[in-house]
Amino acid sequence: MKILKVGGGSSINWDFVGEDVARFLKNEQLIIVHGAGAIRDEIATQLNTPSRTIISPSGYSSTYTDKKAIEIFLMVYPGLMNKQIVAKLQSYGVNAVGLSGIDGRLWQAKRKKEILSQEGSKIKVIKDSFTGKVEKINTDLLKLLLGAQYLPVLCPPAISEEYEIVNTDNDTATAVLAKEMKCKEIIILFEAPGLLKNYKDESTMIKHIPKEKIDDYLPYAQGRMKKKVLGAKKAFENGVTKIYWGDGRIAQPITRLLKGEGTIIS
Amino acid sequence: MKILKVGGGSSINWDFVGEDVARFLKNEQLIIVHGAGAIRDEIATQLNTPSRTIISPSGYSSTYTDKKAIEIFLMVYPGLMNKQIVAKLQSYGVNAVGLSGIDGRLWQAKRKKEILSQEGSKIKVIKDSFTGKVEKINTDLLKLLLGAQYLPVLCPPAISEEYEIVNTDNDTATAVLAKEMKCKEIIILFEAPGLLKNYKDESTMIKHIPKEKIDDYLPYAQGRMKKKVLGAKKAFENGVTKIYWGDGRIAQPITRLLKGEGTIIS
Repeated sequence: MKILKVGGGSSINWDFVGEDVARFLKNEQLIIVHGAGAIRDEIATQLNTPSRTIISPSGYSSTYTDKKAIEIFLMVYPGLMNKQIVAKLQSYGVNAVGLSGIDGRLWQAKRKKEILSQEGSKIKVIKDSFTGKVEKINTDLLKLLLGAQYLPVLCPPAISEEYEIVNTDNDTATAVLAKEMKCKEIIILFEAPGLLKNYKDESTMIKHIPKEKIDDYLPYAQGRMKKKVLGAKKAFENGVTKIYWGDGRIAQPITRLLKGEGTIIS
Repeated sequence: MKILKVGGGSSINWDFVGEDVARFLKNEQLIIVHGAGAIRDEIATQLNTPSRTIISPSGYSSTYTDKKAIEIFLMVYPGLMNKQIVAKLQSYGVNAVGLSGIDGRLWQAKRKKEILSQEGSKIKVIKDSFTGKVEKINTDLLKLLLGAQYLPVLCPPAISEEYEIVNTDNDTATAVLAKEMKCKEIIILFEAPGLLKNYKDESTMIKHIPKEKIDDYLPYAQGRMKKKVLGAKKAFENGVTKIYWGDGRIAQPITRLLKGEGTIIS
Protein backbone atom coordinates (compact mmCIF):
# COMPACT_ATOMS: atom_id res chain seq x y z
CA MET A 1 0.00 0.00 0.00
CA LYS A 2 1.17 3.51 -0.83
CA ILE A 3 -0.05 6.97 0.15
CA LEU A 4 -0.69 9.44 -2.66
CA LYS A 5 -0.61 13.05 -1.56
CA VAL A 6 -1.86 15.60 -4.09
CA GLY A 7 -1.32 19.31 -3.58
CA GLY A 8 -4.08 21.90 -3.63
CA GLY A 9 -2.84 23.91 -6.61
CA SER A 10 -5.22 25.04 -9.32
CA SER A 11 -3.35 23.38 -12.20
CA ILE A 12 -3.33 19.83 -10.80
CA ASN A 13 -5.07 17.75 -13.50
CA TRP A 14 -7.49 15.47 -11.68
CA ASP A 15 -8.47 13.67 -14.89
CA PHE A 16 -4.86 12.59 -15.36
CA VAL A 17 -4.59 11.69 -11.67
CA GLY A 18 -7.93 9.81 -11.66
CA GLU A 19 -7.08 7.76 -14.74
CA ASP A 20 -3.68 6.86 -13.34
CA VAL A 21 -5.08 5.98 -9.90
CA ALA A 22 -7.41 3.47 -11.61
CA ARG A 23 -4.34 1.95 -13.33
CA PHE A 24 -2.32 1.87 -10.09
CA LEU A 25 -5.11 0.13 -8.12
CA LYS A 26 -4.92 -2.93 -10.38
CA ASN A 27 -1.73 -3.91 -8.54
CA GLU A 28 -1.68 -2.17 -5.19
CA GLN A 29 -3.86 -0.36 -2.65
CA LEU A 30 -3.75 3.39 -2.08
CA ILE A 31 -4.84 6.07 0.36
CA ILE A 32 -5.18 9.58 -1.09
CA VAL A 33 -4.59 12.78 0.89
CA HIS A 34 -5.32 16.04 -0.87
CA GLY A 35 -5.09 19.78 -0.40
CA ALA A 36 -7.30 22.60 -1.69
CA GLY A 37 -5.29 25.74 -0.96
CA ALA A 38 -5.82 27.56 -4.25
CA ILE A 39 -9.61 27.26 -4.33
CA ARG A 40 -9.78 27.96 -0.58
CA ASP A 41 -7.97 31.28 -1.11
CA GLU A 42 -10.30 32.09 -4.00
CA ILE A 43 -13.51 31.39 -2.03
CA ALA A 44 -12.13 33.24 1.01
CA THR A 45 -11.58 36.31 -1.15
CA GLN A 46 -15.09 36.01 -2.63
CA LEU A 47 -16.43 35.92 0.95
CA ASN A 48 -14.47 39.08 1.80
CA THR A 49 -12.24 37.33 4.32
CA PRO A 50 -9.06 36.69 2.32
CA SER A 51 -6.69 34.03 3.68
CA ARG A 52 -3.88 35.46 5.78
CA THR A 53 -0.43 33.89 5.90
CA ILE A 54 1.64 33.66 9.05
CA ILE A 55 5.42 33.39 8.82
CA SER A 56 6.89 31.66 11.86
CA PRO A 57 10.11 33.05 13.40
CA SER A 58 11.94 30.10 11.80
CA GLY A 59 10.61 31.06 8.36
CA TYR A 60 7.80 28.54 7.72
CA SER A 61 4.54 29.87 6.30
CA SER A 62 1.08 28.72 7.37
CA THR A 63 -2.49 30.00 7.16
CA TYR A 64 -3.97 32.03 9.99
CA THR A 65 -7.10 30.05 10.86
CA ASP A 66 -9.65 31.82 13.04
CA LYS A 67 -13.31 30.71 13.41
CA LYS A 68 -14.33 32.24 10.09
CA ALA A 69 -11.36 30.70 8.29
CA ILE A 70 -12.31 27.28 9.72
CA GLU A 71 -15.80 27.68 8.23
CA ILE A 72 -14.33 28.44 4.81
CA PHE A 73 -11.90 25.55 5.28
CA LEU A 74 -14.85 23.19 5.91
CA MET A 75 -16.64 24.50 2.84
CA VAL A 76 -13.70 23.94 0.52
CA TYR A 77 -11.65 20.96 1.74
CA PRO A 78 -14.18 18.25 2.75
CA GLY A 79 -16.93 19.99 0.74
CA LEU A 80 -16.21 21.41 -2.70
CA MET A 81 -12.79 19.85 -3.32
CA ASN A 82 -13.11 16.42 -1.70
CA LYS A 83 -16.47 15.64 -3.26
CA GLN A 84 -15.41 16.77 -6.74
CA ILE A 85 -12.34 14.53 -6.46
CA VAL A 86 -14.46 11.59 -5.30
CA ALA A 87 -16.94 12.06 -8.18
CA LYS A 88 -14.00 12.30 -10.64
CA LEU A 89 -12.43 9.10 -9.29
CA GLN A 90 -15.81 7.35 -9.45
CA SER A 91 -16.03 8.35 -13.12
CA TYR A 92 -12.78 6.38 -13.68
CA GLY A 93 -14.27 3.34 -11.98
CA VAL A 94 -12.53 3.91 -8.64
CA ASN A 95 -14.79 3.32 -5.64
CA ALA A 96 -13.66 6.34 -3.66
CA VAL A 97 -15.00 7.45 -0.27
CA GLY A 98 -14.14 10.95 0.92
CA LEU A 99 -13.46 11.58 4.60
CA SER A 100 -12.11 14.49 6.61
CA GLY A 101 -10.02 14.12 9.73
CA ILE A 102 -13.20 14.79 11.75
CA ASP A 103 -15.06 11.72 10.47
CA GLY A 104 -14.66 8.84 12.87
CA ARG A 105 -11.95 11.02 14.49
CA LEU A 106 -9.69 9.88 11.67
CA TRP A 107 -7.08 12.55 12.37
CA GLN A 108 -6.81 13.33 16.08
CA ALA A 109 -4.77 16.46 16.71
CA LYS A 110 -3.39 18.46 19.59
CA ARG A 111 -4.45 22.07 19.22
CA LYS A 112 -1.70 24.65 19.44
CA LYS A 113 -2.72 27.05 22.20
CA GLU A 114 -0.40 29.72 20.83
CA ILE A 115 1.41 30.23 17.58
CA LEU A 116 4.16 32.73 16.85
CA SER A 117 4.09 35.13 13.94
CA GLN A 118 7.05 37.13 12.73
CA GLU A 119 5.79 40.60 11.82
CA GLY A 120 8.67 42.76 10.65
CA SER A 121 11.11 42.81 13.54
CA LYS A 122 8.43 41.83 16.08
CA ILE A 123 7.15 38.41 17.12
CA LYS A 124 3.41 38.32 17.80
CA VAL A 125 1.62 35.63 19.83
CA ILE A 126 -1.62 34.45 18.19
CA LYS A 127 -4.15 32.71 20.45
CA ASP A 128 -7.31 32.42 18.35
CA SER A 129 -5.92 30.20 15.64
CA PHE A 130 -7.52 26.77 15.29
CA THR A 131 -4.49 24.82 14.19
CA GLY A 132 -3.04 21.62 15.50
CA LYS A 133 -0.68 18.74 14.93
CA VAL A 134 -2.08 15.31 14.04
CA GLU A 135 -0.90 12.80 16.64
CA LYS A 136 -3.18 9.79 16.19
CA ILE A 137 -4.97 8.13 13.27
CA ASN A 138 -8.11 5.99 13.35
CA THR A 139 -6.46 3.15 11.44
CA ASP A 140 -9.43 0.83 12.15
CA LEU A 141 -11.72 2.96 9.97
CA LEU A 142 -9.16 3.06 7.14
CA LYS A 143 -8.58 -0.70 7.31
CA LEU A 144 -12.34 -1.29 7.34
CA LEU A 145 -12.73 0.68 4.09
CA LEU A 146 -9.58 -0.70 2.41
CA GLY A 147 -10.64 -4.23 3.35
CA ALA A 148 -13.91 -3.69 1.48
CA GLN A 149 -12.04 -2.35 -1.58
CA TYR A 150 -12.89 1.34 -1.09
CA LEU A 151 -10.29 4.00 -1.78
CA PRO A 152 -10.16 6.47 1.14
CA VAL A 153 -9.76 10.08 -0.02
CA LEU A 154 -8.68 12.11 3.00
CA CYS A 155 -8.33 15.80 3.74
CA PRO A 156 -8.05 18.12 6.70
CA PRO A 157 -9.35 19.52 9.02
CA ALA A 158 -8.53 17.34 12.00
CA ILE A 159 -10.36 17.14 15.33
CA SER A 160 -8.75 18.03 18.67
CA GLU A 161 -9.04 16.18 21.98
CA GLU A 162 -11.59 18.85 23.00
CA TYR A 163 -13.53 18.21 19.77
CA GLU A 164 -12.48 21.48 18.17
CA ILE A 165 -12.14 21.52 14.40
CA VAL A 166 -8.50 22.35 13.63
CA ASN A 167 -6.50 23.06 10.51
CA THR A 168 -3.41 20.95 10.28
CA ASP A 169 -0.30 20.67 8.17
CA ASN A 170 -1.01 18.04 5.52
CA ASP A 171 2.61 17.00 5.13
CA THR A 172 3.02 16.20 8.82
CA ALA A 173 -0.40 14.49 8.91
CA THR A 174 0.69 12.32 5.97
CA ALA A 175 3.87 11.35 7.80
CA VAL A 176 1.84 10.26 10.87
CA LEU A 177 -0.60 8.42 8.59
CA ALA A 178 2.33 6.53 6.99
CA LYS A 179 3.65 5.54 10.41
CA GLU A 180 0.35 4.24 11.76
CA MET A 181 -0.59 2.45 8.52
CA LYS A 182 2.97 1.02 8.28
CA CYS A 183 3.28 2.45 4.79
CA LYS A 184 6.80 2.55 3.33
CA GLU A 185 6.36 4.75 0.25
CA ILE A 186 4.69 8.12 -0.31
CA ILE A 187 3.94 9.60 -3.73
CA ILE A 188 3.58 13.38 -3.71
CA LEU A 189 2.19 15.31 -6.68
CA PHE A 190 2.38 19.09 -6.96
CA GLU A 191 2.76 21.79 -9.60
CA ALA A 192 6.41 21.27 -10.50
CA PRO A 193 8.38 18.40 -12.04
CA GLY A 194 10.17 17.82 -8.72
CA LEU A 195 12.47 19.83 -6.46
CA LEU A 196 14.31 22.43 -8.53
CA LYS A 197 17.72 23.87 -7.72
CA ASN A 198 16.54 27.09 -9.29
CA TYR A 199 12.79 27.24 -8.73
CA LYS A 200 12.33 29.34 -11.87
CA ASP A 201 14.04 26.79 -14.11
CA GLU A 202 12.47 23.36 -14.52
CA SER A 203 15.63 22.01 -16.15
CA THR A 204 17.41 22.25 -12.78
CA MET A 205 15.38 19.40 -11.26
CA ILE A 206 17.14 17.27 -8.67
CA LYS A 207 16.73 13.58 -9.61
CA HIS A 208 17.73 11.98 -6.33
CA ILE A 209 18.15 13.07 -2.73
CA PRO A 210 19.81 10.69 -0.26
CA LYS A 211 17.37 10.61 2.67
CA GLU A 212 20.11 11.20 5.26
CA LYS A 213 21.15 14.39 3.44
CA ILE A 214 17.71 15.95 3.09
CA ASP A 215 18.67 18.96 5.25
CA ASP A 216 21.27 19.96 2.67
CA TYR A 217 18.44 20.48 0.16
CA LEU A 218 16.35 22.79 2.36
CA PRO A 219 17.92 25.93 0.81
CA TYR A 220 16.42 24.97 -2.59
CA ALA A 221 12.88 24.77 -1.16
CA GLN A 222 10.83 27.94 -1.69
CA GLY A 223 7.72 28.95 0.32
CA ARG A 224 5.42 26.03 1.07
CA MET A 225 7.96 23.62 -0.42
CA LYS A 226 9.92 24.04 2.84
CA LYS A 227 7.09 22.20 4.63
CA LYS A 228 7.32 19.34 2.17
CA VAL A 229 10.99 18.92 3.01
CA LEU A 230 10.13 19.03 6.72
CA GLY A 231 7.26 16.55 6.17
CA ALA A 232 9.62 14.23 4.31
CA LYS A 233 12.10 14.31 7.20
CA LYS A 234 9.29 13.45 9.60
CA ALA A 235 8.11 10.63 7.29
CA PHE A 236 11.58 9.06 7.23
CA GLU A 237 11.73 9.27 11.04
CA ASN A 238 8.39 7.42 10.95
CA GLY A 239 9.71 4.44 9.00
CA VAL A 240 9.06 5.54 5.41
CA THR A 241 11.87 4.41 3.08
CA LYS A 242 11.06 6.23 -0.18
CA ILE A 243 9.31 9.46 -1.16
CA TYR A 244 8.49 10.49 -4.73
CA TRP A 245 7.96 14.16 -5.66
CA GLY A 246 6.45 14.68 -9.08
CA ASP A 247 4.26 16.68 -11.41
CA GLY A 248 0.47 16.58 -10.93
CA ARG A 249 -0.17 18.47 -14.16
CA ILE A 250 0.97 15.81 -16.64
CA ALA A 251 -0.64 12.65 -18.09
CA GLN A 252 0.04 9.41 -16.18
CA PRO A 253 1.63 11.36 -13.34
CA ILE A 254 1.95 8.40 -10.95
CA THR A 255 3.22 5.87 -13.51
CA ARG A 256 5.84 8.29 -14.81
CA LEU A 257 6.95 9.37 -11.33
CA LEU A 258 7.39 5.76 -10.20
CA LYS A 259 9.55 5.22 -13.29
CA GLY A 260 11.82 8.08 -12.20
CA GLU A 261 10.33 11.24 -13.73
CA GLY A 262 10.65 13.45 -10.65
CA THR A 263 12.65 13.79 -7.47
CA ILE A 264 13.15 10.60 -5.50
CA ILE A 265 14.27 10.69 -1.87
CA SER A 266 15.53 7.38 -0.54
CA MET B 1 -32.58 0.51 13.37
CA LYS B 2 -34.26 3.84 12.70
CA ILE B 3 -33.52 6.70 10.33
CA LEU B 4 -33.33 10.19 11.84
CA LYS B 5 -33.88 12.96 9.35
CA VAL B 6 -33.07 16.47 10.56
CA GLY B 7 -34.11 19.54 8.59
CA GLY B 8 -31.74 22.26 7.47
CA GLY B 9 -33.36 25.13 9.39
CA SER B 10 -31.23 27.61 11.30
CA SER B 11 -32.93 27.05 14.68
CA ILE B 12 -32.40 23.27 14.87
CA ASN B 13 -30.48 22.77 18.13
CA TRP B 14 -27.69 20.31 17.34
CA ASP B 15 -26.58 20.16 20.98
CA PHE B 16 -30.00 18.88 21.96
CA VAL B 17 -30.03 16.50 18.99
CA GLY B 18 -26.47 15.27 19.66
CA GLU B 19 -27.11 14.60 23.33
CA ASP B 20 -30.32 12.72 22.53
CA VAL B 21 -28.70 10.69 19.73
CA ALA B 22 -26.09 9.47 22.25
CA ARG B 23 -28.97 8.38 24.55
CA PHE B 24 -30.86 6.69 21.69
CA LEU B 25 -27.80 4.71 20.54
CA LYS B 26 -27.62 2.86 23.86
CA ASN B 27 -30.58 0.77 22.69
CA GLU B 28 -30.77 0.93 18.94
CA GLN B 29 -28.80 1.82 15.80
CA LEU B 30 -29.41 4.92 13.73
CA ILE B 31 -28.65 6.48 10.37
CA ILE B 32 -28.84 10.29 10.22
CA VAL B 33 -29.82 12.25 7.11
CA HIS B 34 -29.60 16.03 7.35
CA GLY B 35 -30.35 19.16 5.37
CA ALA B 36 -28.60 22.55 5.31
CA GLY B 37 -31.00 24.78 3.41
CA ALA B 38 -30.83 27.85 5.63
CA ILE B 39 -27.06 28.16 5.70
CA ARG B 40 -26.88 27.25 2.00
CA ASP B 41 -29.14 30.21 1.17
CA GLU B 42 -27.03 32.48 3.40
CA ILE B 43 -23.70 31.47 1.79
CA ALA B 44 -25.23 31.67 -1.70
CA THR B 45 -26.28 35.26 -0.98
CA GLN B 46 -22.81 36.10 0.37
CA LEU B 47 -21.36 34.72 -2.88
CA ASN B 48 -23.72 36.94 -4.90
CA THR B 49 -25.60 34.01 -6.41
CA PRO B 50 -28.72 33.80 -4.22
CA SER B 51 -30.65 30.52 -4.29
CA ARG B 52 -33.58 30.53 -6.71
CA THR B 53 -36.75 28.59 -6.05
CA ILE B 54 -38.69 26.78 -8.75
CA ILE B 55 -42.39 26.09 -8.29
CA SER B 56 -43.50 23.06 -10.31
CA PRO B 57 -46.83 23.22 -12.18
CA SER B 58 -48.26 20.96 -9.43
CA GLY B 59 -47.20 23.45 -6.73
CA TYR B 60 -44.07 21.87 -5.22
CA SER B 61 -41.08 24.10 -4.57
CA SER B 62 -37.47 23.11 -5.18
CA THR B 63 -34.12 24.85 -5.65
CA TYR B 64 -32.86 25.72 -9.12
CA THR B 65 -29.47 24.01 -9.20
CA ASP B 66 -27.12 25.06 -12.00
CA LYS B 67 -23.34 24.42 -11.98
CA LYS B 68 -22.65 27.33 -9.63
CA ALA B 69 -25.42 26.26 -7.26
CA ILE B 70 -23.95 22.72 -7.17
CA GLU B 71 -20.60 24.19 -6.09
CA ILE B 72 -22.26 26.10 -3.25
CA PHE B 73 -24.24 22.96 -2.39
CA LEU B 74 -20.98 21.00 -2.08
CA MET B 75 -19.49 23.70 0.12
CA VAL B 76 -22.37 23.74 2.54
CA TYR B 77 -23.95 20.26 2.72
CA PRO B 78 -21.03 17.76 2.85
CA GLY B 79 -18.63 20.55 3.88
CA LEU B 80 -19.64 23.16 6.44
CA MET B 81 -22.82 21.53 7.76
CA ASN B 82 -21.99 17.81 7.70
CA LYS B 83 -18.58 18.23 9.34
CA GLN B 84 -19.89 20.55 12.07
CA ILE B 85 -22.62 17.99 12.83
CA VAL B 86 -20.07 15.16 12.93
CA ALA B 87 -17.78 17.13 15.29
CA LYS B 88 -20.78 17.95 17.51
CA LEU B 89 -21.86 14.28 17.65
CA GLN B 90 -18.27 13.25 18.42
CA SER B 91 -18.30 15.71 21.34
CA TYR B 92 -21.25 13.70 22.76
CA GLY B 93 -19.29 10.47 22.43
CA VAL B 94 -21.00 9.36 19.21
CA ASN B 95 -18.57 7.91 16.67
CA ALA B 96 -20.08 9.65 13.65
CA VAL B 97 -18.81 9.42 10.06
CA GLY B 98 -20.13 11.95 7.55
CA LEU B 99 -20.76 10.90 3.97
CA SER B 100 -22.44 12.49 0.98
CA GLY B 101 -24.36 10.56 -1.64
CA ILE B 102 -21.26 10.79 -3.86
CA ASP B 103 -19.01 8.82 -1.48
CA GLY B 104 -18.93 5.16 -2.47
CA ARG B 105 -21.87 6.09 -4.75
CA LEU B 106 -24.04 5.91 -1.64
CA TRP B 107 -26.98 7.65 -3.31
CA GLN B 108 -27.24 6.78 -7.00
CA ALA B 109 -29.68 9.03 -8.80
CA LYS B 110 -31.24 9.44 -12.19
CA ARG B 111 -30.70 12.99 -13.38
CA LYS B 112 -33.80 14.82 -14.58
CA LYS B 113 -33.04 15.98 -18.13
CA GLU B 114 -35.76 18.62 -17.91
CA ILE B 115 -37.72 20.19 -15.10
CA LEU B 116 -40.82 22.33 -15.37
CA SER B 117 -41.17 25.71 -13.72
CA GLN B 118 -44.45 27.58 -13.35
CA GLU B 119 -43.70 31.27 -13.99
CA GLY B 120 -46.89 33.27 -13.75
CA SER B 121 -49.25 31.78 -16.29
CA LYS B 122 -46.38 30.23 -18.29
CA ILE B 123 -44.61 26.91 -17.87
CA LYS B 124 -40.87 27.08 -18.58
CA VAL B 125 -38.64 24.07 -19.37
CA ILE B 126 -35.31 24.15 -17.50
CA LYS B 127 -32.49 22.01 -18.93
CA ASP B 128 -29.37 23.07 -17.00
CA SER B 129 -30.52 21.98 -13.56
CA PHE B 130 -28.46 19.28 -11.88
CA THR B 131 -31.20 17.55 -9.97
CA GLY B 132 -32.16 13.93 -9.79
CA LYS B 133 -34.11 11.23 -8.00
CA VAL B 134 -32.27 8.72 -5.82
CA GLU B 135 -32.98 5.22 -7.10
CA LYS B 136 -30.33 3.03 -5.52
CA ILE B 137 -28.41 3.01 -2.23
CA ASN B 138 -25.00 1.49 -1.51
CA THR B 139 -26.29 -0.51 1.46
CA ASP B 140 -22.99 -2.47 1.68
CA LEU B 141 -21.11 0.67 2.71
CA LEU B 142 -23.74 1.57 5.32
CA LYS B 143 -23.77 -1.96 6.74
CA LEU B 144 -19.96 -1.97 6.84
CA LEU B 145 -19.95 1.19 8.96
CA LEU B 146 -22.92 0.21 11.16
CA GLY B 147 -21.35 -3.21 11.74
CA ALA B 148 -18.25 -1.48 13.11
CA GLN B 149 -20.39 0.74 15.39
CA TYR B 150 -20.05 3.95 13.39
CA LEU B 151 -23.02 6.29 12.99
CA PRO B 152 -23.42 7.27 9.33
CA VAL B 153 -24.35 10.95 8.90
CA LEU B 154 -25.61 11.38 5.35
CA CYS B 155 -26.45 14.33 3.16
CA PRO B 156 -26.97 15.15 -0.50
CA PRO B 157 -25.81 15.62 -3.21
CA ALA B 158 -26.23 12.30 -5.00
CA ILE B 159 -24.29 11.01 -8.01
CA SER B 160 -25.90 10.20 -11.36
CA GLU B 161 -25.25 7.20 -13.61
CA GLU B 162 -23.07 9.54 -15.72
CA TYR B 163 -21.16 10.57 -12.56
CA GLU B 164 -22.71 14.03 -12.45
CA ILE B 165 -23.17 15.59 -9.03
CA VAL B 166 -26.91 16.14 -8.58
CA ASN B 167 -29.09 17.79 -5.96
CA THR B 168 -31.86 15.55 -4.77
CA ASP B 169 -34.96 15.72 -2.65
CA ASN B 170 -33.96 14.57 0.84
CA ASP B 171 -37.42 13.28 1.73
CA THR B 172 -37.58 10.97 -1.28
CA ALA B 173 -33.97 9.88 -0.75
CA THR B 174 -34.83 9.01 2.86
CA ALA B 175 -37.78 6.92 1.68
CA VAL B 176 -35.53 4.95 -0.70
CA LEU B 177 -32.92 4.58 2.05
CA ALA B 178 -35.60 3.14 4.37
CA LYS B 179 -36.66 0.64 1.73
CA GLU B 180 -33.18 -0.62 0.93
CA MET B 181 -32.10 -0.75 4.59
CA LYS B 182 -35.41 -2.45 5.51
CA CYS B 183 -36.04 0.25 8.09
CA LYS B 184 -39.57 0.45 9.49
CA GLU B 185 -39.56 3.77 11.36
CA ILE B 186 -38.39 7.25 10.43
CA ILE B 187 -37.96 10.11 12.90
CA ILE B 188 -38.12 13.56 11.30
CA LEU B 189 -37.11 16.72 13.17
CA PHE B 190 -37.84 20.20 11.87
CA GLU B 191 -38.67 23.67 13.14
CA ALA B 192 -42.23 23.08 14.31
CA PRO B 193 -43.82 20.86 16.96
CA GLY B 194 -45.42 18.71 14.24
CA LEU B 195 -47.92 19.25 11.41
CA LEU B 196 -50.15 22.18 12.29
CA LYS B 197 -53.73 22.68 11.08
CA ASN B 198 -53.04 26.39 11.13
CA TYR B 199 -49.33 26.83 10.44
CA LYS B 200 -49.24 30.07 12.40
CA ASP B 201 -50.66 28.47 15.57
CA GLU B 202 -48.61 25.75 17.29
CA SER B 203 -51.62 24.78 19.44
CA THR B 204 -53.32 23.35 16.33
CA MET B 205 -50.87 20.45 16.06
CA ILE B 206 -52.23 17.21 14.64
CA LYS B 207 -51.34 14.34 17.00
CA HIS B 208 -52.01 11.42 14.71
CA ILE B 209 -52.48 10.83 11.01
CA PRO B 210 -53.69 7.43 9.79
CA LYS B 211 -51.20 6.49 7.07
CA GLU B 212 -53.89 5.58 4.56
CA LYS B 213 -55.44 9.05 4.93
CA ILE B 214 -52.27 11.07 4.52
CA ASP B 215 -53.57 12.75 1.33
CA ASP B 216 -56.36 14.36 3.35
CA TYR B 217 -53.72 16.27 5.31
CA LEU B 218 -51.90 17.73 2.30
CA PRO B 219 -53.94 20.97 2.45
CA TYR B 220 -52.41 21.73 5.90
CA ALA B 221 -48.85 21.46 4.57
CA GLN B 222 -47.26 24.80 3.67
CA GLY B 223 -44.25 25.32 1.33
CA ARG B 224 -41.57 22.69 1.75
CA MET B 225 -43.80 20.79 4.20
CA LYS B 226 -45.68 19.55 1.14
CA LYS B 227 -42.60 17.55 0.17
CA LYS B 228 -42.49 15.96 3.59
CA VAL B 229 -46.05 14.72 3.12
CA LEU B 230 -45.09 13.39 -0.32
CA GLY B 231 -41.92 11.80 1.13
CA ALA B 232 -43.99 10.16 3.86
CA LYS B 233 -46.36 8.67 1.27
CA LYS B 234 -43.38 7.30 -0.64
CA ALA B 235 -41.89 5.89 2.58
CA PHE B 236 -45.12 4.02 3.41
CA GLU B 237 -45.17 2.61 -0.13
CA ASN B 238 -41.59 1.45 0.59
CA GLY B 239 -42.54 -0.61 3.65
CA VAL B 240 -42.17 1.95 6.45
CA THR B 241 -44.87 1.51 9.12
CA LYS B 242 -44.42 4.62 11.29
CA ILE B 243 -43.17 8.17 10.79
CA TYR B 244 -42.62 10.69 13.58
CA TRP B 245 -42.63 14.45 12.88
CA GLY B 246 -41.31 16.56 15.74
CA ASP B 247 -39.49 19.62 16.96
CA GLY B 248 -35.71 19.87 16.45
CA ARG B 249 -35.44 23.00 18.58
CA ILE B 250 -36.27 21.47 21.98
CA ALA B 251 -34.28 19.46 24.54
CA GLN B 252 -34.43 15.66 24.17
CA PRO B 253 -36.20 16.00 20.84
CA ILE B 254 -36.04 12.31 19.90
CA THR B 255 -37.00 10.92 23.32
CA ARG B 256 -39.98 13.25 23.58
CA LEU B 257 -41.11 12.64 20.01
CA LEU B 258 -41.01 8.86 20.48
CA LYS B 259 -43.17 9.37 23.59
CA GLY B 260 -45.77 11.16 21.49
CA GLU B 261 -44.80 14.85 21.51
CA GLY B 262 -45.33 15.51 17.82
CA THR B 263 -47.28 14.21 14.84
CA ILE B 264 -47.25 10.45 14.38
CA ILE B 265 -48.27 8.89 11.09
CA SER B 266 -49.02 5.17 11.29
